[in-house]
Parts: sequence; C-alpha cells; structure tokens
Amino acid sequence: MSQRPSTPLLDRIASPADLRALPETSLRQVADELRLDLIDAVSRTGGHLGAGLGVVELTVAIHAVFDTPADRLIWDVGHQAYPHKILTGRREAMRTVRQEGGVSGFAKRTESEYDPFGAGHSSTSISAGLGMAVAAEMDGRRNNVIAVIGDGAMTAGMAYEAMNNAGALDARLIVILNDNDMSIAPPTGALSAYLARLVSGKTYRTLRNRAKTVTSHLPEFVREGARKTEEYTRGFLTGGTMFEELGFYYVGPIDGHDLDHLLPVLRNVRDNGDGPVLIHVVTRKGKGYAPAEASADKYHGVSKFDVVTGTQSKPKSNAPSYTKVFAETLIQEAHEDEKIVAINAAMPDGTGLDLFGQAFPKRTFDVGIAEQHAVTFAAGLATEGYKPFVAIYSTFLQRAYDQIVHDVAIQHLPVRFAIDRAGFVGADGPTHAGSFDTGFLCPLPGMVVMAAADEAELRHMVRTAVEHEDGPISFRYPRGNGTGVEMPERGRALEIGRGRIVREGSKVAILSFGSRLAEAVAAAEELEGFGLSTTVADARFAKPLDTDLIRRLAAHHEVLILIEEGASGGFAAQVLEHMARHGLMDRGVKVRPMTMPDRFVDHAAPEAMIKVSGLDRAAIVETVFRALGDTAQRVMRA
Amino acid sequence: MSQRPSTPLLDRIASPADLRALPETSLRQVADELRLDLIDAVSRTGGHLGAGLGVVELTVAIHAVFDTPADRLIWDVGHQAYPHKILTGRREAMRTVRQEGGVSGFAKRTESEYDPFGAGHSSTSISAGLGMAVAAEMDGRRNNVIAVIGDGAMTAGMAYEAMNNAGALDARLIVILNDNDMSIAPPTGALSAYLARLVSGKTYRTLRNRAKTVTSHLPEFVREGARKTEEYTRGFLTGGTMFEELGFYYVGPIDGHDLDHLLPVLRNVRDNGDGPVLIHVVTRKGKGYAPAEASADKYHGVSKFDVVTGTQSKPKSNAPSYTKVFAETLIQEAHEDEKIVAINAAMPDGTGLDLFGQAFPKRTFDVGIAEQHAVTFAAGLATEGYKPFVAIYSTFLQRAYDQIVHDVAIQHLPVRFAIDRAGFVGADGPTHAGSFDTGFLCPLPGMVVMAAADEAELRHMVRTAVEHEDGPISFRYPRGNGTGVEMPERGRALEIGRGRIVREGSKVAILSFGSRLAEAVAAAEELEGFGLSTTVADARFAKPLDTDLIRRLAAHHEVLILIEEGASGGFAAQVLEHMARHGLMDRGVKVRPMTMPDRFVDHAAPEAMIKVSGLDRAAIVETVFRALGDTAQRVMRA
Repeated sequence: MSQRPSTPLLDRIASPADLRALPETSLRQVADELRLDLIDAVSRTGGHLGAGLGVVELTVAIHAVFDTPADRLIWDVGHQAYPHKILTGRREAMRTVRQEGGVSGFAKRTESEYDPFGAGHSSTSISAGLGMAVAAEMDGRRNNVIAVIGDGAMTAGMAYEAMNNAGALDARLIVILNDNDMSIAPPTGALSAYLARLVSGKTYRTLRNRAKTVTSHLPEFVREGARKTEEYTRGFLTGGTMFEELGFYYVGPIDGHDLDHLLPVLRNVRDNGDGPVLIHVVTRKGKGYAPAEASADKYHGVSKFDVVTGTQSKPKSNAPSYTKVFAETLIQEAHEDEKIVAINAAMPDGTGLDLFGQAFPKRTFDVGIAEQHAVTFAAGLATEGYKPFVAIYSTFLQRAYDQIVHDVAIQHLPVRFAIDRAGFVGADGPTHAGSFDTGFLCPLPGMVVMAAADEAELRHMVRTAVEHEDGPISFRYPRGNGTGVEMPERGRALEIGRGRIVREGSKVAILSFGSRLAEAVAAAEELEGFGLSTTVADARFAKPLDTDLIRRLAAHHEVLILIEEGASGGFAAQVLEHMARHGLMDRGVKVRPMTMPDRFVDHAAPEAMIKVSGLDRAAIVETVFRALGDTAQRVMRA
Repeated sequence: MSQRPSTPLLDRIASPADLRALPETSLRQVADELRLDLIDAVSRTGGHLGAGLGVVELTVAIHAVFDTPADRLIWDVGHQAYPHKILTGRREAMRTVRQEGGVSGFAKRTESEYDPFGAGHSSTSISAGLGMAVAAEMDGRRNNVIAVIGDGAMTAGMAYEAMNNAGALDARLIVILNDNDMSIAPPTGALSAYLARLVSGKTYRTLRNRAKTVTSHLPEFVREGARKTEEYTRGFLTGGTMFEELGFYYVGPIDGHDLDHLLPVLRNVRDNGDGPVLIHVVTRKGKGYAPAEASADKYHGVSKFDVVTGTQSKPKSNAPSYTKVFAETLIQEAHEDEKIVAINAAMPDGTGLDLFGQAFPKRTFDVGIAEQHAVTFAAGLATEGYKPFVAIYSTFLQRAYDQIVHDVAIQHLPVRFAIDRAGFVGADGPTHAGSFDTGFLCPLPGMVVMAAADEAELRHMVRTAVEHEDGPISFRYPRGNGTGVEMPERGRALEIGRGRIVREGSKVAILSFGSRLAEAVAAAEELEGFGLSTTVADARFAKPLDTDLIRRLAAHHEVLILIEEGASGGFAAQVLEHMARHGLMDRGVKVRPMTMPDRFVDHAAPEAMIKVSGLDRAAIVETVFRALGDTAQRVMRA
C-alpha cells in the first residue's frame, strides 16, 4: 500500500474552527491537500469519489465562511459529503467509511453535530433546510441554513415542492445548486438543458470574468427595497428567471473550483441575505483526479483502486449479476415483442437499462430522478397497449407508492415492476436497504408479487411479466451476483400463484420467498443430519399465494418456517393471514416467520447483515429447534 | 323537487360527435345549458360542483375542437370532469353520481372510452398523458393528447417531474393549465404568486383585448424554425418563461369562459403544434352560479342543495366529527406547549387545520399539494426541537412514503402523523379509501402506530403524540362523526403499546384496532345471547403491540378475532407474526383476521361499504361461529 500524501495544513485542522482561523490565502492549499487525502482514503476503502472531488473547494469555502454547526449545512444525498466529513473531525474515521462499524457513506445525524440531516436518497435537503430555517425564525435565531443540492437531484418533484414553498414563506434559506451536469448518470430533462443554457450563455462568461466586481455589488441588489424593483430586470440579465419565478434570489453561475469566486459570493449572501437565495455553482465531478475525470461515471462509486493508475480492484465472480441477467433477458424478450419498453429513473447503469438502451434506444426512457412520474408515465404507456418495465431499486420505489396504488393498481394496468436491490445492499446501509417492497405491494388488489430465488428464476420471471396482461406484476431480486445455477436459454412464463417444491421431507418445511432459498436448502441438509426430514419450497409468489402448497406444507409437517429477506408485514404476513383465515393453523402446526429484524441494520458486508439479522442457515436451524422444543431435545440427545 | 331546466340543444347531444356537428355559433348556448344541467344534477345528488362550473366552456371547446376519444383527454383529479361526463354519454347517469351503483365522481377508465385515465388524486395527468403521447409517436399515430390540470395540482412535484421529462422528450402533448387560483383551498406557494403576476400583468390585459389577432399569428410562432429563434424573446413578451424553460411552448393567459378566445387557440394548437404546449387558461371556480361564486370554497364538494337559495341540506349529528375533535384537541394542547406546529398539504379545511390556523397562524403551514415536502419539512422542524403534527389523509400519505421511511423513521425523528379519512370514505370511492396506512407504517422500525376507536380516544392519542419524543408516532381516525361518547376535558398520554379490555368474557375474544370497536361490542352482545362469553379489547396500538394482552387473549379463549378497517398486511398481520414468532398459536387458539377484502370497493355509503366488506357486527358473529365449527353447532342447537 502506498504512503499517505503529505498534508501539512490539513493535519492542523481538527474542526471547521481551525479552518476559519487560517488566512484566506491558505485555503487554496487546504483544498489541494483535502483532495489528495480524499483520493488516498477512498483508494483504500472504496466508496463514492467523483461527487466528493467535485465539491472540495465548495466544502472548504462553506466551512470557512459559515459558522458550522450553528449554521446548518445539509448535503443532499450524502455521497458528496466525504470532504465535509474529513473537515469535521472524521478524517481518520473516513479510513473505515462504509465498512462494518465504520462511518457511513452518507451524512448521518448520529455521527456528528455537523450533520444536521442525513440523506441517502436525493432531493430532500431543501425541505429539511426549510424546516430548520422556519424553526430558526420562530426561535428568533439568526443562523444560516445551507442546502447543497445537485442538478440531478433538482429534477425530483420533491425539490420543486420545497422551492415553491420556500419562495412563498420567504424564509432565510440558502440553496447551493451544485451543477456538475451529472448526478449518477448523465442527466436528462428540460431543467438540465436549461442549466446548460445558463452556463453557456454570454452572461456566465461575463460573470466569470468580472466575478469580484459583480459580487461587490451584490449587497445593493439584496437590499429589500431594491430587490423588489430589480426583480424582473435582474432575472433577464442573469438568466435565472426560473428560480426567480419560484421566489428565490438567483446568484450565478459561479465557478465552483475557484475560491476567489466562491468566498466573496458566500460572504455576501451570508451578510446580506433575507429570504431564499439560490447560488448556482458549476463544478466538475471527479475534478482534479485524471482517471475520475476521464471515466464515464466520473468514479461515482468505486472499489478500492490504485491511486497512480486508477485501476479498481473488482472482486471476481463466476455468476452474473442479477442486474445483468435482468437486462439481458429483457433485451432477449424485447427482440420477440416490440411492445416492450423500459423506464428508469436516473439509474441506467444501476438497473442494467443502459444495455437495453443500446439495443433499443427508442424504447428506453430515463425520466430523471422522478420515480413518481416514472410509474404514471408507464401507466400511460400501458393504456395504449405497451408493455412497460419500470426498473427501480426497492428503496427508491417507495417514492412512487401512491402512483403504484392510484394510477396502476386501481386501474389494474399491466405495468411491470423490476425491483432491483431487494434486501440488504451492504455498504450503502439502511437508507438503501430494500426492505419494504413486499409489504407495501401485497396489500394492493390485483397486484402480482414475485421474488427470484436465483438468476434462472429471474429469467423466468421477466418472461412471466412479459406474458402477464391481467394487471400489474412485480419481481424483486437482490443486489450482487447470482448463485451460479445453470441458465435456461430463454425464460418460460411461470404459472401465476404457483410455487415449487425444491426438496421433499416430512417433519420440517421451509417455505422461502426469494433470495434465501439457497440458505434454506443448506439448513435443510443440516437438519437432515439431525434426523429431521425437511421439505424446502420456493414460494415464487407472495401474491397470489400458492394456497395448495401452503395447505400441504401445513398439513404434513410439524414445523413450517417462512423466510424472506424483507421486513415484517411482507410475505410471512400474507401467508399467516391466509392460514388464519382458513383455519390452517388450528391443528397446531408450528409456523415461524423469519424476516428482517425490527430495526434499521447498519452498513456492513451483505453476508454480515444477513447473519446479524438472523436470516442465515444457522438461524434457520436454530429456529426449527426452538419450535420443536421437547422434540428437539430428544433429537439432539439421539 | 324542482323541475329540470329546459335544455333544448343539450338534449340533442348524445356524444361529442353531435357537439362537433353544431355550428360554432351554437356553442355558447350549449355551454349555458350544460351549466344549468350540471347545477340541477348536483343539486339532487350532492358532489363536486365548483370545479365543474369553472370548466364548462373549456369542456365544450375541447370536445368541439378535438376528436375525442381518438384524441385523448385527461382530466387531472376527476372532480372537474362532471361537464365532460354529461357531454360524453353519461348525462342521465350523472343523476346517480357517487351513489351506490352509480357513476363515479371522478374520471374512470371502466366507465367510458372518453376517460382514458382515471384520477382521484391530483397531478398525475401530465405523466399519464406523456405516456400516451410517446405511445402515439411510437405507433406512428398523429392523435392529440390533452391534459387539463389545475394551478393547485401544478404545485405537486409529480407535475414538475412530468413537465421536465416532456420538455426533454419534445413529445406532442398539450397541457391546459386551468388557473382558477384555488384548488380546494386557496393556493399557497410561489407558483401561485407567479401565475397571479402573469395574469395581472400588462401582457395579459393586452392579450385579452387582442386575443383573436394574437392567436391568428400563432401558427407562425409555432413553425419549427421560427420557434427556436423566438424562444427567449417570446418568453419575455408573454411572461411564461418558467414553462418555456421547462421546454414547453407557452400560450396565454386566455379567458377560459370566452369561447371566442378558447376555440381559435385550441384549433391553432391542434393544427400546428409539435412538441409540448402549455395553454394557460384563467377560469373562475363556481362560475355562473352565484351561491358558488360567493362561497369561500366555491362549492368544492357539496351536499344536495336548493338551486334557488343555494342552501345545502347537511345531515345532522349529535357527535362531533373526528376532524373537528382532532383540530380542537391540537389547539388545546398548543396553548400548553408552544413547540407544537401543524402542517397540511392543501387541505386546511379537510384536516381541520383551518381552525388551528386561526388560533395559531404563525405555527400553521399549508405547503400546497406537496405531501413529500410536507413530511421532510416536518422532519426538519423536528430536528430543531419543534413538535410537528403532519395532518394528511391516509390515501394522500401514500405520496410521502419514502419521506416517512427515509427522512423520519431512519432518523428516528419525533414527527407526529395525524391520519384522517382512515378506512372507507364513502362517495369518493376507492381512489380515496384509507386502506394501506397501517400496513405501510408498521414495518418501519421505531414507528408508533395508533388508531382511535372513538373521539375520546382520539383526544388521548393527540395528547400521547404531544408527549411522545422517542421517534415518530401516528394515529389514524375515520371520516365522519364520532360515536357520541363522553369527551374528557383534556386528553391524557396513553402508555405506549398498551391496549385496554372493554368487556371481559371467557370463550371468544375480539381484538379491535380502531374504528370497528363499537361493532365488536355489538357483536359480543349478540354472541352472549348465544351463550358465548365474549371479551372485547381495544388494541389502540398496532405498533408496538400489547404483547401481554395478546398473550392473555390467546391463552384464555378458544377464538380470537382480529378486526380493523384496513387492508391486509396491517394490524392483523402484525399480531399474527408476533404470535407465530412466539408460538402463541401452537396450542390451537383459533385466530381469525378480519380486514378489508382483497379488491377495491366501489363508492357507496360508508355503512354499505363496511357491510359488503364483511366488517360489520353480523360478519363478526358469523366468523366466530365458523371458527367454532362443531362447538357452534352445539351452541346453536342449545
């Protein structure tokens, strides 16, 4: 491992107060050292790099100008917060970022008083900041609230709702629009084109050249009287009319890597602002590290890498990722059925739809960070006879719950939901865990809810969704690689509501929904070793349930384990409600649900999260023995 | 009952084709007759009136100009669709609107081919329309897609997400912004102020006076070449830059009650449009009916009324509404605790927060139709030590699910959720039913989930929420009036996770969560008549569960009924999972969950919906007898 870079100034900064004690002329060097330290840290741990590199100067400038933590600083989506963490007492801790027991990859309230609001999902910062600003006003405090939000995050409806409300409340809130023209994927949407026009326009070039002059005039603009009369004219001059129309005072665009531009503007806004201000800062994702700047995704999320060459050490696997199997299968099916279209919300790479887009560019829609719109847009396509596949991570699908209920389920439209990252996701931790999808989908009348036990099953489920025309259908699959099973040439349409027996036994039954099947089989083998004949079944469907299968399992076994990689209220709940309704538990079969625990599980390796949650082989075996009680004692003694 | 008004022209219109066969000079009379017919119809049934009155001319103009249903016409939130229903073959059916077996109060796909997309929740039309427009393009069809959306609905993030995407896709989509400056409540937000500026500005007055001249020039503007070069200039001229910046061609504002303005503009857009167009139409809610125009809510939703006087016939009740009890209790508590603040999303009247706002104007926040923002804004307030109460109907809270998970629950912030309209809501039907809240909240770690069995309980739960500081807490209560119980002077803080026994028995136990308690008691009395000693308990909490109570009920009864006015996956699921985990069903207690059925229940009177769903006294008694089986036979014989 390489030596840590020399960072003499940074070494003296234990907190932002130390930064503020430095002369302004030293800040450029602090930023340079901070960048080196960030690259070095992430090269050893992996994590989010590109976003942090883009805001090094901005982070230094904010902490130098504002009185954090009394001034509240909120980083929208945490992954731009790495430099912030380094400057706020977590420099050494960043060497364990996203590792078990280490600091989070996102801002987190419990981690530091410098993190007033945590975030893993995007576009929440303006709402939270407005709450803080209003609270300050009610308290009679004069502190600043600063929300830093990317241009991609600005496409989410939630950000717009917050701006609309902030404009009306006229609250003292500073929004810094970090315009790097790329959130995770290259942005799409009219807003992005609009921002590009602002930046490329004559105004920006003029402002760049005269930044100091312009900013020295700012206080006058900001004075309340002047403000009102200048409102329209100034909008035309600077081009920020859209934000002005939402009630914000627009400043920018500003070069986000030039401290000589950033510092005076921030100071001016700090000293003269009243009402909401939007500062439009232009940055470059991956800035200052050549391999990141050159890479297509600007090193958004990386594995450990070699600082000199930029080469990432990706763990090898023999099995393909679920994401890739989904994408390849959908491409295969789309060759057969021209009505198939695919929709994603600013996640073409993560969902595999970048591949689909290469094969079918006109049948692929990336709608931006806009899950709500994605789902209802798909519903519109479905009304016209198309077969939309909406590919959204489990955790982000929460954003579109009402649209799933109201626009899809009530109208019984055949929208297909491909739910990636279902279950634990590892280093991204609780904000990204796919825990609740089975629970929030199953109660919806007419919804079909599937989970893939392995990558071959996923292929079948994609085909099943293609063929299913009677209302909406969903299939969930985990993050990471498949189990390495043999892949069928092409998927076949599964019978709706029909599970499968994987192994037959007579005393214990394990009914698995989704990714825990392999572990269930392993547990069964261990149980056989104790003389406990064990059936394992793959439910495939949480809705409609395979009621025949459940009846048989209940009738012919002493213990019935229900297992899923999801929160309570999901598959097990559906099975238990069905069994209770039909009296299937009256004769005393011992049913034991195994779900995620009733707490948010901290980031760690996925296997560690599974283990700590009691969803592994050992936990299954233990649950069986506990259920058997006396019988188990006899078995163990035998 | 008064005579139906004379409508000779309207009588000849069986479908929009008949309308299109009329000379343009007759359309004014059609509109007048349509307005009379609408007033007459709603006076007999009750329903939504103000919104429909505002779009009479617009509805006539759209159907006269466009080739519906080949051209797709989507009404955002259905309740402006009454005139549309009258013109599209449902004139007589409108005499049964919102009644059991009658037509829906909203647009509904299964009702007519003229309703390509149903909606009860707002702000979905642009997304759905964009899907249809993109489908038409892929099919090579040249039909138009028209989405009519109110200015209130435009404040929702979803509408913005859709505009941003439409602008980027450059799809052939016509959005008609129906600007009546009032959705249900007077609108709040910067957008509203912006629209007001557009309308009050010099430009609008000029346009009004020269409408015909301007529109006759439109085709030239719209031609592709001209369009690009005119883009910025025109924005300044007409003032619609915000929509232009999102990629829309902006036309307006136009007087929405003047057919001489509407018809040529719509024709021009129809014949010349490419890419998304936004037509800004100014209307008056309640237009043309004096009592509606004079009323504060413009007759948004009305009971039956006398056409001449405008007097509504409200059914009397001796018990106060749950909404009012909530509001009055919160006001009472807010006098004691200055940290209490209240947030609603464009529903001050519906949630009762209009009363709170009168008492505490500076502690009340109406954020617009923006449930996502509402919740995270509240989370921001909670971080600063405030006690936010977010009052949102169960059905609309679905819009904020991710914010509840990600911004509130993961951060364990004490945000209070007042969930009104939980359960069946009657005439508004399935789009507004409060079915899923218990199910989507209970799986969230650290969330406290309560339901009020009566209005006194609601008062206690408000107080409980005030006192609860350890994470988020919610309480649900139904639409309509309380049960008439005696009210405590002030609420007391309930012990978290503790239910109460309402009556003691020995053979059957009924554990009720929320509104079904009175019915459970009635069922118990009937069961006693059969010699079946029956316990009734009020769970109060679905999370955390009263595990002692459940253990006792399971241990000492033969049958345990779980009942709630909610979908599967809710309270019963929580109890069953708990009981299974701890082996409480191993000894054969017969547990029977009673929830809403697994289908969307059509609108009817609430009691009828309860009955058809099997959640009334008779259904409880029947469920008990079925569970008892042989025993029951003996009981019946005895």
